[in-house]
Amino acid sequence: MKTSNVKAFGTIAADADLKEMSIERREVTAKDIEIEILYCGVCHSDLHTARNDWGGSVYPVVPGHEIVGRVTKVGNEVTKLKVGDLAGVGCLVDSCRECNSCDHDLEQYCLNGFTGTYNGHDKHLGGHTFGGYSQKVVVDEHFVLKIPTNLNLAAVAPLLCAGITTWSPLRHWKVGKGSKVAVVGLGGLGHMAIKLAKGLGADVTLFSRSEGKVKDGKELGADNVVISTDAEQMKSVLGKFDLIIDTVPYAHDVNPYVATLAISGTLVLVGYLGDLDPMLNTVPMIMGRRAVAASVIGGIAETQEMLDFCGEHNIVSEIEIINMQDINTAYERMLKSDVRYRFVIDMDSLKK
Amino acid sequence: MKTSNVKAFGTIAADADLKEMSIERREVTAKDIEIEILYCGVCHSDLHTARNDWGGSVYPVVPGHEIVGRVTKVGNEVTKLKVGDLAGVGCLVDSCRECNSCDHDLEQYCLNGFTGTYNGHDKHLGGHTFGGYSQKVVVDEHFVLKIPTNLNLAAVAPLLCAGITTWSPLRHWKVGKGSKVAVVGLGGLGHMAIKLAKGLGADVTLFSRSEGKVKDGKELGADNVVISTDAEQMKSVLGKFDLIIDTVPYAHDVNPYVATLAISGTLVLVGYLGDLDPMLNTVPMIMGRRAVAASVIGGIAETQEMLDFCGEHNIVSEIEIINMQDINTAYERMLKSDVRYRFVIDMDSLKK
Repeated sequence: MKTSNVKAFGTIAADADLKEMSIERREVTAKDIEIEILYCGVCHSDLHTARNDWGGSVYPVVPGHEIVGRVTKVGNEVTKLKVGDLAGVGCLVDSCRECNSCDHDLEQYCLNGFTGTYNGHDKHLGGHTFGGYSQKVVVDEHFVLKIPTNLNLAAVAPLLCAGITTWSPLRHWKVGKGSKVAVVGLGGLGHMAIKLAKGLGADVTLFSRSEGKVKDGKELGADNVVISTDAEQMKSVLGKFDLIIDTVPYAHDVNPYVATLAISGTLVLVGYLGDLDPMLNTVPMIMGRRAVAASVIGGIAETQEMLDFCGEHNIVSEIEIINMQDINTAYERMLKSDVRYRFVIDMDSLKK
Repeated sequence: MKTSNVKAFGTIAADADLKEMSIERREVTAKDIEIEILYCGVCHSDLHTARNDWGGSVYPVVPGHEIVGRVTKVGNEVTKLKVGDLAGVGCLVDSCRECNSCDHDLEQYCLNGFTGTYNGHDKHLGGHTFGGYSQKVVVDEHFVLKIPTNLNLAAVAPLLCAGITTWSPLRHWKVGKGSKVAVVGLGGLGHMAIKLAKGLGADVTLFSRSEGKVKDGKELGADNVVISTDAEQMKSVLGKFDLIIDTVPYAHDVNPYVATLAISGTLVLVGYLGDLDPMLNTVPMIMGRRAVAASVIGGIAETQEMLDFCGEHNIVSEIEIINMQDINTAYERMLKSDVRYRFVIDMDSLKK
């Protein structure tokens, strides 16, 4: 298979900094789209994979799955986009395309395992996939998204992961006008959850441990901010929410939030992988048919729906633009939650 | 308020046996129905309340919330039933009738607290309510159920609690023809879950720890019985079930069952109050949008729907009829799971 070399930024070991490197991209096949990457968002998963925090990383790791850019080449059977169009790629670049999940536009739950945009198995070249911290990417058109042309392109990038991760549960649990939604945590995911829930017509509450987030939460569109360490404030929202999107990425007590669910309400975890510690208590659940669920990213059709919705409602992420060369510093700042609310790499900087 | 004395069976303390006693029942008011109790099922909650296992019991405790009988008197505004009709009373005899839950036929989740058939606050006479281990009961017609006339009346009694407790989640999570349902545990609740899920057209699997339950489970209608301690058998059903009804009443590891849920599936706990110990792990949940929920009994309209369905499909509980005087022995046998699958008291025995 014909390939070409492109500049990228990645790491050769869990304890090494990211630095410039060269990777191979395949020539477009019949269904492929080649995209010149203009911006790439920086997700916490990038950092966790680069540093092998979850185990299973294969090196070199080239992170990045919030990709936007412009189409530079298309295979001869491609119909979705043409050269010069804006295009996006999120967390998935392939899946089996034939299981029950794939048949139902749920590629994120592909029963044979989806192919991640980085650190997935590369079916074309062998080895593993490389992400968006690079000049170009080549992806089957099914996994390429159309990008609304009326939005700030750099600020669209985080929609491809942070956006869809919160959009999918909002849609699955049928949030609409008048729904009461709460969001736990105000980071990359949390700030998108507020904007998207608000866009869907919900009454939105932010739960935060910090008084400092009250102003920010309201500016982002939250109708209400509840300080979760304040017993009186927590009591005031008991039994209130139809859906809670919990974006917290570390172990935390979900019981106080479950108690704020309305009858038949659901708390959905989108940020935490691990044991629910402290233990979940079933009493408030059984006395109100309450549920605790979890959800990961979203399917391709749903991602397109979200992008179209954001175009119509002028919704983008809040971002801080960085150069590719600043990525190691950016990771350190992310670990201190020192970002409002998503770093986005200007890939032009990689040309330098 | 006018009252009359009726014979009942109850206990005056957590550590005392149940014995015959006299209790007061109110004269019917405009909306009330008086029922001569013919049969009363014996639920685990009866035993737990009699012995104050959950705390909060007030004595004397007269248990019983699986009540069937015949109407002997009606208030002048009653339209639902007339003297001589069969009638049933389940776990609820009142609720606020004006909250959002009550407005939506979810009296079991009344935001102001429903009135339990026993050990609830008696709004009419003060004090607390007395259950179905008695000759008569007087209940507002809203909380009285119509009983299909084509069924074995004694075997209908357990439908009022064990039946509705499993019916409600089957309906809420939209089980129908082709749904894949699993039931954890084969007792009073579990055997009804199998029959009702099967009646709704589902493909039904029983999870049991005991090889001895295979034959019983299949006779009750299960298409398949999986021995939950057999790793190979558990592996064979990974990712299979749309809904799992977990009837186990004590702390147990739900993680192996969560792994057998299909994408977007739900495990609903109907028997266990307490901490999920060992801890629930979110990884299989997030990788398949799986949920853990809990549910308690059901609303009045839903209970009527279930009874009508049972009439149409000839579904009743499997029972062992006992005399009222045998109740203390029956409780001991229940603690050893020595009952297939529900004791029902022939209340005629109380006349002796």
